[in-house]
Amino acid sequence: MTDLQIDTNGRLRHLLTLDGLGRERINALLDRAAQLRAGFRGGASSPRLLEGRTVVNLFFESSTRTRTSFELAARRLGAIVVNFDIANSSTSKGESLEDTLATLEAMDSDAFIVRHKENGTPARLAAHARKAAILNAGDGNHAHPTQGLLDLLTIRDHKNRIDGLKVVICGDIKHSRVARSDIHGLSALGVGEIHLCGPAALLPAANEFPHCQVDEDFDAALSAADVVIMLRLQKERMESLSGIRETDYFARYGLSHTRLARARSDALVMHPGPMNRGIEIAPDVADGPQSVILDQVANGIFVRMAVLAELLGR
Amino acid sequence: MTDLQIDTNGRLRHLLTLDGLGRERINALLDRAAQLRAGFRGGASSPRLLEGRTVVNLFFESSTRTRTSFELAARRLGAIVVNFDIANSSTSKGESLEDTLATLEAMDSDAFIVRHKENGTPARLAAHARKAAILNAGDGNHAHPTQGLLDLLTIRDHKNRIDGLKVVICGDIKHSRVARSDIHGLSALGVGEIHLCGPAALLPAANEFPHCQVDEDFDAALSAADVVIMLRLQKERMESLSGIRETDYFARYGLSHTRLARARSDALVMHPGPMNRGIEIAPDVADGPQSVILDQVANGIFVRMAVLAELLGR
Amino acid sequence: MTDLQIDTNGRLRHLLTLDGLGRERINALLDRAAQLRAGFRGGASSPRLLEGRTVVNLFFESSTRTRTSFELAARRLGAIVVNFDIANSSTSKGESLEDTLATLEAMDSDAFIVRHKENGTPARLAAHARKAAILNAGDGNHAHPTQGLLDLLTIRDHKNRIDGLKVVICGDIKHSRVARSDIHGLSALGVGEIHLCGPAALLPAANEFPHCQVDEDFDAALSAADVVIMLRLQKERMESLSGIRETDYFARYGLSHTRLARARSDALVMHPGPMNRGIEIAPDVADGPQSVILDQVANGIFVRMAVLAELLGR
Repeated sequence: MTDLQIDTNGRLRHLLTLDGLGRERINALLDRAAQLRAGFRGGASSPRLLEGRTVVNLFFESSTRTRTSFELAARRLGAIVVNFDIANSSTSKGESLEDTLATLEAMDSDAFIVRHKENGTPARLAAHARKAAILNAGDGNHAHPTQGLLDLLTIRDHKNRIDGLKVVICGDIKHSRVARSDIHGLSALGVGEIHLCGPAALLPAANEFPHCQVDEDFDAALSAADVVIMLRLQKERMESLSGIRETDYFARYGLSHTRLARARSDALVMHPGPMNRGIEIAPDVADGPQSVILDQVANGIFVRMAVLAELLGR
Repeated sequence: MTDLQIDTNGRLRHLLTLDGLGRERINALLDRAAQLRAGFRGGASSPRLLEGRTVVNLFFESSTRTRTSFELAARRLGAIVVNFDIANSSTSKGESLEDTLATLEAMDSDAFIVRHKENGTPARLAAHARKAAILNAGDGNHAHPTQGLLDLLTIRDHKNRIDGLKVVICGDIKHSRVARSDIHGLSALGVGEIHLCGPAALLPAANEFPHCQVDEDFDAALSAADVVIMLRLQKERMESLSGIRETDYFARYGLSHTRLARARSDALVMHPGPMNRGIEIAPDVADGPQSVILDQVANGIFVRMAVLAELLGR
Repeated sequence: MTDLQIDTNGRLRHLLTLDGLGRERINALLDRAAQLRAGFRGGASSPRLLEGRTVVNLFFESSTRTRTSFELAARRLGAIVVNFDIANSSTSKGESLEDTLATLEAMDSDAFIVRHKENGTPARLAAHARKAAILNAGDGNHAHPTQGLLDLLTIRDHKNRIDGLKVVICGDIKHSRVARSDIHGLSALGVGEIHLCGPAALLPAANEFPHCQVDEDFDAALSAADVVIMLRLQKERMESLSGIRETDYFARYGLSHTRLARARSDALVMHPGPMNRGIEIAPDVADGPQSVILDQVANGIFVRMAVLAELLGR
């Protein structure tokens, strides 16, 4: 995968996964995001780095939140953004995904933001793209690299480092692309320990993350944690797979105020959103002083600007 | 409500209703709209007063007409406009409206244009907004303040005043936010008389508008009227509530050429659109010399520009 | 129809059909498209010829491909583009199409891109437009003039002429607006011969195109052809009208490598997209060295820019 996303001159060509991207490249993206943020917060107009470029949102799974974040990132840098309407598109008339890509690329589109329920679709498109860049906005349970980057930036902002931190990720790890991109990014930047918690049925295969600790006991894992990342629970999946009822889930895996007290007193509370308040996280924790959930959202724009600038900037 | 929309420095912070907004503030908005219109009509490019600002359309009820008007107003002033797709959004995945607002605001959105079927939703969001401005684009039967402003501007253009005019509003007053915002705006600017006409079942409670005359007899009310505002009739509602059939409705409450002759010869004919031709208004009246219906549409853009400039302009 | 699209000063006022537009005017549009393309390909930013202008996409039939092409063309020239959401619009609430047009025109919209399943809808709107330009993006089986222009430009690029060429169009000619606009455009520019091929049930009436040769035998028609234009087959229509099964269709009317060898060795292969690979065209032909299908897509943007510039440029 890494080969596909780096060109022969060593430049980032697509962003498909953080897996194998490397510490230096990830830090450079985070630095650029922080720099763009400083400019924006300082009231400067954003640099028109994407003036004259065209960015196409290709969301085969709907996600207004992520799509809007990419759209704002691209437009604030001056790009033209087209939201390709999959439901009414040629793809729905039987055209292959590769032909749809080729057609839109022939219209001089410079980048495609792709979300798809199947693992590997962005990579498949990257293999077919002639010149355009492919940005993975989430594929199956495989990767969501810009979410990984925004989580890294948020942690770095508050902790000034990733090295040596203890991070706990709790919820449906098995089906989560967010968890996977967080794990890849945190590992690349030298995190201390990663604990993956959740009901047995929602935990990953034992050998998928040999350097992570996988545990059903959330309380134990929280001890001395620096960062707690709660994942969104899909209710349908929870009941069918884990056999746990909604109310029981919160009792065992919900982040309450009491439970949070087991972590370090300055532990960060994170969530990729949208939240199920009262299911995986208590409202007072979501809105409490340790929550950096809205910082994550804000940083999402800036890491996406940084990635687009890196991929398309002349 | 007024307190929520005016900040402690006396500046307009949100636009939720014309009720209590006051003559001076309303006139200032109308003046600004007229000034922006003069510039645009004179061929000047619109001032980029919203350059670098982000405006989000949050339409929980679909209304292409109003949404497009706000979108054009914002974009002609240089804003980035995002049409938030409610049907596919996190809100539809169970996220609270407040969390959706907080998320979009964290993406540095500056204003939200809100339409919702429930009274008070824009005010509820205004109470939660940290910095962003909320513009009510219609909530339940409560208010539609920019429609009120565009109606005022249209009348002022043609009559050079609001003071002392006789205005008749006819149709489903009870369920109409347009009627309410018109009544608030006209009253603030010193209108002479307001007559509210329609079938008994579609009239407001007797004490809701003590300064208006409420009447089932449209013909009597029209006598010497300066302005006749016809409301769109929702057919489903008409039949179920008033027991009146479509054809009978036009006979009693439709604005025909003959009936219009009861008003002053220079009376204005207005309608917020979309029209049901032949139900509440005769085609030849809608297209006749006294109709200012398309002026209303045109002014809609300019009052929305004025409100956005007032709320977001630096 | 021609009268409607040319104003009294002889200027192009709307683009409804290529029928009767004339060689000089068509060549001028192709030249302008080629010039805009040269600038864009040379890396220059596109001229902001539509700065301050508003273009509305009014697609009553969904077509993401064509709509996106028009949208990019308009936005790259600096226009504001609004995608009018028909499904949620006043038109769907019973407003007449003419009222919808008048309303959007009152919002100072400068051009409407119209696609509709009924022949003549764009002309009907052109007859009602006060100042705005109407661009036909496909009406029924009547016309699709920008598709005709992009096909002409693509052929001219590769053959340096249209005069004297032999062009074969194959598929459902009867229901195809693409075929009609191609025939009108090619004829205006002095094409040599046009052969129309397909199953009898999908061929046009014998007298509709007296100057074309109409034939069920595709193999015979291909002999010495310079250009082969394959049309998309609508599967439902094929089976119900022609009684031919999908697999049999390819055997008789699909463009295979073997069959293409009957044409000139430098014959161009064209298709308006989206393609049904394996039904009307073999994958290796679609992707082969004679295929200019992606050139057609690319040229679509530039001919639409040229038409918009011609209609709206000051």
